[in-house]
Amino acid sequence: MRVAFGSLYPLGPGKLALIEAIADTGSISAAARALGMSYRRAWLLVDAVNRSFRRPLVETSTGGRGGGGARVTEAGRQALEQYRRIEEIAVASVREEVEAFSALLADDIAVLPEDPDGEN
Amino acid sequence: MRVAFGSLYPLGPGKLALIEAIADTGSISAAARALGMSYRRAWLLVDAVNRSFRRPLVETSTGGRGGGGARVTEAGRQALEQYRRIEEIAVASVREEVEAFSALLADDIAVLPEDPDGEN
Repeated sequence: MRVAFGSLYPLGPGKLALIEAIADTGSISAAARALGMSYRRAWLLVDAVNRSFRRPLVETSTGGRGGGGARVTEAGRQALEQYRRIEEIAVASVREEVEAFSALLADDIAVLPEDPDGEN
Repeated sequence: MRVAFGSLYPLGPGKLALIEAIADTGSISAAARALGMSYRRAWLLVDAVNRSFRRPLVETSTGGRGGGGARVTEAGRQALEQYRRIEEIAVASVREEVEAFSALLADDIAVLPEDPDGEN
């Protein structure tokens, strides 16, 4: 059984994945591509994240060859770490209850095309 | 700060809201309307839920005036209850950590139109 911790609004799984992809790739456009997201959407999410926190989590530099890059700041690394830690504690806190719950499930779980990643 | 527990795959917030709306309205079509969802999508989600569990969580009856209804079964009520309990425990387990995390947030959090309910 897969337990997904949701969000610590305003930071949720989508923005988290984006920030991690920026840390990996060093640019918003490469991160957007890696996640199959438009550059515009990625940029708007980064902007929303940065404005939601006291200190920006992502820093961009313009110009240069390749059109500038982006990096996750120290504040960003701290926020990601704290988020992941919260996720871990929360998931660990319900381990037994989740096991009991999963006994209610059918042996074969079908995921329909309309709900490809079971996010509903 | 709003903490949203994600999903106990294959049951997540979308399907949960749908089942609760069915319990409230007594029909899939009324529940779909209440959630701004197409009847087809609601029906597919209910079907996916029912096939994911050993016993169906929602029962439908066809025919009659108004075209039949739907109700949440005893197994459904139990599953909802267990899910909500798991959610409660998980959220309570990180109360202090979430408080510390929320200190990183700006005082004014802007939600962009592209991310209306902050689900990213």
